[in-house]
Amino acid sequence: MGKVLEKEAFGLAAKDNSGVLSPFRFARRHEIVGLVTEVGGKVTKFKTGDKVGVGCMVGSCGSCDSCTEGLENYCPKMIQTYGFKYYDDTITYGGYSDNMVCDEAFIIRIPDNLPLDAAAPLLCAGITVYSPLKYHGLDKPGMHIGVVGLGGLGHVAVKFAKAMGTKVTVISTSDSKRGEAINRLGADAFVVSRDPQQIKGAMGTMDGIINTVSATHSLLPLLGMLKHKGKLVMVGAPEKPLELSVMPLIFERKMVMGSMIGGIKETQEMVDMAGKHNITADIELISADYVNTAMERLEKADVRYRFVIDVANTLKPTP
Amino acid sequence: MGKVLEKEAFGLAAKDNSGVLSPFRFARRHEIVGLVTEVGGKVTKFKTGDKVGVGCMVGSCGSCDSCTEGLENYCPKMIQTYGFKYYDDTITYGGYSDNMVCDEAFIIRIPDNLPLDAAAPLLCAGITVYSPLKYHGLDKPGMHIGVVGLGGLGHVAVKFAKAMGTKVTVISTSDSKRGEAINRLGADAFVVSRDPQQIKGAMGTMDGIINTVSATHSLLPLLGMLKHKGKLVMVGAPEKPLELSVMPLIFERKMVMGSMIGGIKETQEMVDMAGKHNITADIELISADYVNTAMERLEKADVRYRFVIDVANTLKPTP
Repeated sequence: MGKVLEKEAFGLAAKDNSGVLSPFRFARRHEIVGLVTEVGGKVTKFKTGDKVGVGCMVGSCGSCDSCTEGLENYCPKMIQTYGFKYYDDTITYGGYSDNMVCDEAFIIRIPDNLPLDAAAPLLCAGITVYSPLKYHGLDKPGMHIGVVGLGGLGHVAVKFAKAMGTKVTVISTSDSKRGEAINRLGADAFVVSRDPQQIKGAMGTMDGIINTVSATHSLLPLLGMLKHKGKLVMVGAPEKPLELSVMPLIFERKMVMGSMIGGIKETQEMVDMAGKHNITADIELISADYVNTAMERLEKADVRYRFVIDVANTLKPTP
Repeated sequence: MGKVLEKEAFGLAAKDNSGVLSPFRFARRHEIVGLVTEVGGKVTKFKTGDKVGVGCMVGSCGSCDSCTEGLENYCPKMIQTYGFKYYDDTITYGGYSDNMVCDEAFIIRIPDNLPLDAAAPLLCAGITVYSPLKYHGLDKPGMHIGVVGLGGLGHVAVKFAKAMGTKVTVISTSDSKRGEAINRLGADAFVVSRDPQQIKGAMGTMDGIINTVSATHSLLPLLGMLKHKGKLVMVGAPEKPLELSVMPLIFERKMVMGSMIGGIKETQEMVDMAGKHNITADIELISADYVNTAMERLEKADVRYRFVIDVANTLKPTP
């Protein structure tokens, strides 16, 4: 958590095509929101005072096939918001700072009606689930979408899938989140993935599944819950290989695919949709001096569903 | 191989919408070709003397989503050409017979310029590789297609992919088929899957891969050879689950999917394309009394690439 105090990492002057954003509120180092405090001479998209955010990326090559398609997230030279070398050979440090300079091409406009703090997680969690729902055509009203895992990604996936007009079933290892999923998040159904009877009842019913789980787990019951031609989209990233039974793919033309955040254009679309449907993440706003406790609670999965650090009110600028 | 003599299994009278096909030449029990010898009163597609074939299916429900889409192969009530219960509760016995009755809806017209014997394997092997190439958009000229395994399916996949105008690389466990693949089948390149250097040279180059291997094997090098958004299509069916590394799916939006034969409409399209491009399987024509030896040779993979049994000239009808 040392990075929290590295607020000068982004203490750069605004460049021609950049804006300085301050103060920030952020969840993680790459779900960052704030107000524009200064803009460079060539900035056209934003002006001082605008409500904006930065997600996982701050740069890309701009000329490869992915960039040309507006999918900077798949650019081989994509520069992540922290831990990457920037164009000028400095290292990116993300959002643990009270101001930040960013190329306007990687800044997202946050709709006026969304609160900054609860909108922040949309910039990674939101786009991570929105992009595959759209790209794989799983956004059609009346479709049935499964969401595996009800954490930071999963709870936002439920909200977007519902806003798209689909029927949503949450698939979770334990029954403890059933009430939360259905009564508070608006899911239509809940399946305990360790209960063979519940899995059996859901067999062959889903058009697509967004799988947010990064622990090692079996894909077979998930493939079983898909309809013919159904799509299993991995957005959680298990370190070890998972077992894949090929028969369901062959006999029913099912597919397994993955997805990683999204391009800037679709991130703006996602945030605009969130504004229209009042979609935000469920967060717990904390002050900077709570981060160590927050980290301990994160290890126990004791957060619903994202911590957001209120830097503006807890970090004082260095004189 | 006892079924070879069960020629009376299909000694049925032609029904209203059926034709009797005789004599047959066939490879396996579900790659069957012959001439129409008799047609029922309601048959409109075929007449006596037509050159026809029957593939893996002889019936389906006709009303489900798959049937409505012309994909009888994915109909839950699809009736396979052998070992399945037919509408009238008799058992289907496939092509080890000197005549066969079949609903005209499941009969494929064989183009005049194709020899019956070498066309027979198209009805399973051909459609198995043609369908995913078309369905997944892997049929565009200039694309780069990998074909894993150079057997009954693989060698036909090379021919169709080349006819579609793609660049084709054969991926095989040993170098022994390199000359065959390139000089005789027309592949553009050859990669030995056990040679890390050759795999490295092919990394990130392919739009799609047709994987015909049914032995347990690693998917990771195959996923590595795909371009961004590339598609790995499983048509070989390993019994045991394979290890799937999720990272290539997430970071590069790669997909793993499967495919099983094809619908009647696309099977006819495939055979028509074969006629246009003179595509047939490479076969060894044998007589019925050679089948036991053929089975022994099959177990040693000693055939290039399909045995076809010439029933017409070796099975005498029972008086």
